[in-house]
Amino acid sequence: MNLVEAGRALAAESARFAALGWMRGTSGNLSVTLGRDPLRLAVTASGLDKGTLTETDVVEVDFHGDPVSGSLPPSAEAALHARIARVARAGAVVHLHQLAPVIAAERNPGGIVLRDLEMLKGFGRAAHDDEVRVPVVPNSQDMRVLGDAFEAGFDPATPALVVARHGVYVWGADLEQARHRAECLEWLLRFVNSVQGTDTPGGFA
Amino acid sequence: MNLVEAGRALAAESARFAALGWMRGTSGNLSVTLGRDPLRLAVTASGLDKGTLTETDVVEVDFHGDPVSGSLPPSAEAALHARIARVARAGAVVHLHQLAPVIAAERNPGGIVLRDLEMLKGFGRAAHDDEVRVPVVPNSQDMRVLGDAFEAGFDPATPALVVARHGVYVWGADLEQARHRAECLEWLLRFVNSVQGTDTPGGFA
Amino acid sequence: MNLVEAGRALAAESARFAALGWMRGTSGNLSVTLGRDPLRLAVTASGLDKGTLTETDVVEVDFHGDPVSGSLPPSAEAALHARIARVARAGAVVHLHQLAPVIAAERNPGGIVLRDLEMLKGFGRAAHDDEVRVPVVPNSQDMRVLGDAFEAGFDPATPALVVARHGVYVWGADLEQARHRAECLEWLLRFVNSVQGTDTPGGFA
Amino acid sequence: MNLVEAGRALAAESARFAALGWMRGTSGNLSVTLGRDPLRLAVTASGLDKGTLTETDVVEVDFHGDPVSGSLPPSAEAALHARIARVARAGAVVHLHQLAPVIAAERNPGGIVLRDLEMLKGFGRAAHDDEVRVPVVPNSQDMRVLGDAFEAGFDPATPALVVARHGVYVWGADLEQARHRAECLEWLLRFVNSVQGTDTPGGFA
Repeated sequence: MNLVEAGRALAAESARFAALGWMRGTSGNLSVTLGRDPLRLAVTASGLDKGTLTETDVVEVDFHGDPVSGSLPPSAEAALHARIARVARAGAVVHLHQLAPVIAAERNPGGIVLRDLEMLKGFGRAAHDDEVRVPVVPNSQDMRVLGDAFEAGFDPATPALVVARHGVYVWGADLEQARHRAECLEWLLRFVNSVQGTDTPGGFA
Repeated sequence: MNLVEAGRALAAESARFAALGWMRGTSGNLSVTLGRDPLRLAVTASGLDKGTLTETDVVEVDFHGDPVSGSLPPSAEAALHARIARVARAGAVVHLHQLAPVIAAERNPGGIVLRDLEMLKGFGRAAHDDEVRVPVVPNSQDMRVLGDAFEAGFDPATPALVVARHGVYVWGADLEQARHRAECLEWLLRFVNSVQGTDTPGGFA
Repeated sequence: MNLVEAGRALAAESARFAALGWMRGTSGNLSVTLGRDPLRLAVTASGLDKGTLTETDVVEVDFHGDPVSGSLPPSAEAALHARIARVARAGAVVHLHQLAPVIAAERNPGGIVLRDLEMLKGFGRAAHDDEVRVPVVPNSQDMRVLGDAFEAGFDPATPALVVARHGVYVWGADLEQARHRAECLEWLLRFVNSVQGTDTPGGFA
Repeated sequence: MNLVEAGRALAAESARFAALGWMRGTSGNLSVTLGRDPLRLAVTASGLDKGTLTETDVVEVDFHGDPVSGSLPPSAEAALHARIARVARAGAVVHLHQLAPVIAAERNPGGIVLRDLEMLKGFGRAAHDDEVRVPVVPNSQDMRVLGDAFEAGFDPATPALVVARHGVYVWGADLEQARHRAECLEWLLRFVNSVQGTDTPGGFA
């Protein structure tokens, strides 16, 4: 996939996520891996409305999340995309500001445990007897700090990272798989929030 | 209805359910009964995004849910579709991953009781003095186990089965009736969840 | 407005309400008053998907809700539409299966009190110092029973009736005003439900 | 930007907000600043469905919110738009009837405190160590009273005002920035409502 194809795919996916309310304001960013040696990602440009991106609103970045060419600034979170792409060998990473993961993380700061739920299959895990712990890390503006926390808790079997009071990163072999997993995780976390009663302070007692 | 017509109808219905958020990831599957002697169903193919199916993303299966022809794999749950089509004499079965039934089942593992609600008419029952118990069965990856549990609790008057921690099956004479019933049941279960306070741990006390 | 124009307007409004999830299955029905002497209403036909009505899916009914001409059956609730049109001198009546009014009625069976909320202006009332009691009546399949209950609690200043465990009737001078009022009432009742905590059993204690 | 361009932009933004359910009935209104010396605003006309405005459904108003020309009545709240435009030097003000701010204000009548949430960046603040207090003022039909309350609590760093039991005003340099901030604030307040359990009476204890 070249940068133009990547830009087109990222714009289409961004519009889809924006319509779901998962990229409010100019929040969130998506990337696809263009190459591995050296590592190159196409990342959505920073500060734009995610509902109206075009194929040129994309930046090619390197291992550090620094722009390789072009004049647009990449997303500030490009470095974490690059690190996830490298460590998890992801072909695509979506960073969304869904509400459900942030609410779930508030109640489960040590990680959100999911188990025995069919929707886990859509997240890449088993529907039975497979305890999934979605890691939660504290928010930071320092992508190295976030990346270290991600790597410290990285489990190759769990394609997601929740950043507390911030949002979620989900990855997969390609953008479609990353989206499917993000959709399934969101469903799972709404279920968890409902059952845990995270919506009520009584629920915290 | 031949397989092409069925494929077209299944693709249209799938896109509709996907837009409602009831087929997240690649979850859920739909079927229509093509013939009864021998039993033949058209089932959506496995592993595809349900928002973008085409008329060819369909598989003809037999009594056991095994493909009769073609190269696409049918949904893993095709065997349960076939069993429901046979036992309930359904013309169409929709299997959806709506959140409300799964939340309701979590609280009501022995079955979800509905009574004296107008929306029950859209589910094929009476609005008054007619106690409806929507059966809940434990989740399983073995379609025979699920099918036996379905059949054990089968009441011809109740066109739905909730699979705990999984989703819901709803059926009818055709796809439109199955959809209408699925819509009405979802409404009813959101009502039940709200009144039962399933969203709060206090509600479980 | 003649029957064809009415049919066109009713189809458009129905599609709009269906897209909002307020006419699940084939539930709900809409009417406009065609004439007053004698009373004539155009009512949506019974049993159809409200998202795909056409201008001919409409029935002209009289004072009793009985069809004046044509072969389509009117909605079973046409008689209540006619009674509301007569008593409240409404130009349009919308009967919707919104969830919020049914939840609110469950908690407030004697009527839902609203006061000091700006959105009351969109419902035809004042934003301050104006106590609004939206009447709640028990559900019935007998339109005369429902109509008597409606009339017993009728206040010309309150253009809505909630039928417990069923849905809501809202009316106005024309379809647009009825819709605006239905939208505002739904907002108000979601607010009330949230503040009253109707979603929790603790809330009933 | 001239009045026609402003009308076009206001109509497009209104349709967008209406589709999100944030301008139910004919509620809410939007404005852009046309000039500062003297102050001139383009404000959406009063009493219209916000989903179907055209470029001519706009009124030019002065410092007092009084129409400068044309025959359409401006929104009754035009005077508050003008005051916000003047005091906050806003290029655009959006007044929405989102549910989340009204619920949050009910629980936090002295102001809604937000802190250490990434989404605050989309609201124009910092994601860390920056306590944001979104002011809440009592509702009034007197725009001078509302304006005085706004000005008394005005903090140039906080581009929003919640009017209790009414709705929210959000502003920015232009309509897009105002929208982005309104989207982010809504997200933040849904989070706050969820964590505070405003949806439950237990939450008020």
